[in-house]
Amino acid sequence: MAEPTFQSLPGFRDFTPRECAVRNYLFETWRNVARRHGYVEYETPILEDTGLYLKKSGGELSSQLFRFEDQGGRDVTLRPEVTASLARLAAQHQRDFPKPLKWFEIGQCFRYEKPQKGRGREFHQFNVDILGEAGPAADAELIALSIATMLAFGFTAGDFMVRVSDRQAWIDFAKAHGIADDQTAEFLGIIDKLEREKPEITAEKLAAFSLTTGQVREFIANPPADASPAYAAIAADLTARGYGGFIKLDLSIVRGLAYYTGVVFEVFDARQSMRAVAGGGRYDTLVSTISDGATDLPATGFAMGDYVIRNLIEETAHANMELEVWLRRNAALCDVFVVVADDERRDDALALATRLRNAGISTDFPLARAKVAKQFQSAERARARFALVVGSEFPELKLKVLSSRTEEPCHAETITDFLTIRLTQPDGPLLA
Amino acid sequence: MAEPTFQSLPGFRDFTPRECAVRNYLFETWRNVARRHGYVEYETPILEDTGLYLKKSGGELSSQLFRFEDQGGRDVTLRPEVTASLARLAAQHQRDFPKPLKWFEIGQCFRYEKPQKGRGREFHQFNVDILGEAGPAADAELIALSIATMLAFGFTAGDFMVRVSDRQAWIDFAKAHGIADDQTAEFLGIIDKLEREKPEITAEKLAAFSLTTGQVREFIANPPADASPAYAAIAADLTARGYGGFIKLDLSIVRGLAYYTGVVFEVFDARQSMRAVAGGGRYDTLVSTISDGATDLPATGFAMGDYVIRNLIEETAHANMELEVWLRRNAALCDVFVVVADDERRDDALALATRLRNAGISTDFPLARAKVAKQFQSAERARARFALVVGSEFPELKLKVLSSRTEEPCHAETITDFLTIRLTQPDGPLLA
Repeated sequence: MAEPTFQSLPGFRDFTPRECAVRNYLFETWRNVARRHGYVEYETPILEDTGLYLKKSGGELSSQLFRFEDQGGRDVTLRPEVTASLARLAAQHQRDFPKPLKWFEIGQCFRYEKPQKGRGREFHQFNVDILGEAGPAADAELIALSIATMLAFGFTAGDFMVRVSDRQAWIDFAKAHGIADDQTAEFLGIIDKLEREKPEITAEKLAAFSLTTGQVREFIANPPADASPAYAAIAADLTARGYGGFIKLDLSIVRGLAYYTGVVFEVFDARQSMRAVAGGGRYDTLVSTISDGATDLPATGFAMGDYVIRNLIEETAHANMELEVWLRRNAALCDVFVVVADDERRDDALALATRLRNAGISTDFPLARAKVAKQFQSAERARARFALVVGSEFPELKLKVLSSRTEEPCHAETITDFLTIRLTQPDGPLLA
Repeated sequence: MAEPTFQSLPGFRDFTPRECAVRNYLFETWRNVARRHGYVEYETPILEDTGLYLKKSGGELSSQLFRFEDQGGRDVTLRPEVTASLARLAAQHQRDFPKPLKWFEIGQCFRYEKPQKGRGREFHQFNVDILGEAGPAADAELIALSIATMLAFGFTAGDFMVRVSDRQAWIDFAKAHGIADDQTAEFLGIIDKLEREKPEITAEKLAAFSLTTGQVREFIANPPADASPAYAAIAADLTARGYGGFIKLDLSIVRGLAYYTGVVFEVFDARQSMRAVAGGGRYDTLVSTISDGATDLPATGFAMGDYVIRNLIEETAHANMELEVWLRRNAALCDVFVVVADDERRDDALALATRLRNAGISTDFPLARAKVAKQFQSAERARARFALVVGSEFPELKLKVLSSRTEEPCHAETITDFLTIRLTQPDGPLLA
């Protein structure tokens, strides 16, 4: 009996050319948006000392790690996220760069979760951070990027919303209600689980702090005007940019991770039918923690994974249209397919194809001998715009426009310039 | 006493923005060359079932694997190379694509080796393969791409050489000298180690096959004209492309991996001062092996790692110049830096920057209030071409050309079009 054929591991994706093209669309959009906002790209290792994540989380490791011992006996982990590595890198190198650092990374992360729609065991993540600027202008600049990213994917007003919150508002609330500093983290944990926990358990936990669920819900529903001065500044900033309509204050958002220190936010589809598309916030103490106090650098950042954004694009007609247009524009395997109509001219065809390729023109030709009709079929399957026919009349050539099946004469000597210009022109003469 | 600050793991690189830019130069060049030769991009998982590599290697696993048990008890391995995954993917999906498949991947691989110059424990690899075409035209097309890649990095004749060999020539040699089929692999192993093994050991091993080192060396030094019909066809093909001067027959190359079946080749710097820059060959039986015979697809491919090529670029003045030019062209953090000369106009500056960014112009501005002189310093540090001054005369604006320190008047209403055009023009009026 034959052994089973290998599959990729559960939760790990094979990217066939079409899937890879979709991935490239996400990457290219992320990269373009980041660059036009003045962010620069970096990259950290996929494998790290487990201690780095232990340090970041304050001792509590996720149960979802791909963690193992390497051949040198090191306790290592496939990164579940990038921020710990960034904090290390920034602490080491920040002196070499003017502040603030505006850095982004596009990289793969790994979490041992139950694979399901919108979640795998690996995912690509767009990480964007601003380090070295403590004021709310940095948070606003970061949230503006998350909005610009959504707009770049073709989403419009009404498709998505950024829910902004401020841990400081809760810290002030806790203090005003007599909660001790060392119990604030526990209190934040209760708020974080408000929507997921059974009401009686939440009530019981809050009672330990002499609080009721009603008090907490009232603070969320009707926060006092001065609840978050940072939010007020951010809202004014984003309104000046024309982005005011994309944000709202939502104190129910705390975000689970322990290291956030101030403003936090999440980007949601308008119906909130999915997990957050992106999320992040301020983490002013992490760089200091990771560097054992050697470097103190306030920071704010967010991450967007590739799973949820892709699902949202595909479920939103006008965003999906942008993806489809991009895919069609990038679907051709080559621009020019050289048809060898006379086998005696194969060497000339090879020389010609080499010249075109070296001039930057995407060119292909049949590797095996084939009938001319079959070569034209190959040209069409490759979605080439032009078939360039090399036959017995060489150096005279024929250019066939595949969409209109029209023919244009050309010459081997001038073919590179001819095609360079011809490729910028419409297919024609379809409308002639 | 403070704990030590975290470092990246030995052999794992942090890519600071400059290092990341060099990485992007390699990736962009690889991607461009592959695309203009008609190859399409795919991606396979970084983590795979260890059995996949066991199957590929015919039972002998490398000792250099990052191999571990995942939380589900699976025996998994960080990929040491990509070809095994490609064979799996191609077997599963080949029916969806016209043959031959011309596929490439740029991805990270992992090997537990001693870190040293030109070698780390992770490396990025450019993998290029042609599947579904058995003839030497496919090998020639692949070798042509390896040559075009070197040319794209700025290397020229005299900088590098492709040494082409053919395992079939050795298989024929073995048969002619009475070596049994099931001992051919062992014999190939001796040839592979010819330059590294002690001469007396080689002699002893060859004696077991009734051969002398002299016979083997003579076959390498003066191969008979009919030693490799495949090489003859490849040489004719590449000569027609103008690439004949970049290749030579070198039967001393066997390449260690068991799965190669025919033509193999390696790209070397002309002085052969480094490890091979790239290497590959034909593996006609691997797809069948991986798919348990379900799919039979002849294949040929090569890989180029990022370590050796980068070292070679940096040691070759004219190739390094191309890298430096690219880095300088991509060094700007933004094209336009908005200087807020009047704090009352900060909201106008935010709106302006947002419009420029949404028009695709890379734009930045100071997040914190600062004196105008300091803002100009920031603009220069960001290597912006232009500083756009928003002051009390708003909507009248001033555009400062940072290289020439000249000034041009402009207006908020038309600024997007103005800058879109202005960015395509020279800095000026330097030469006026």
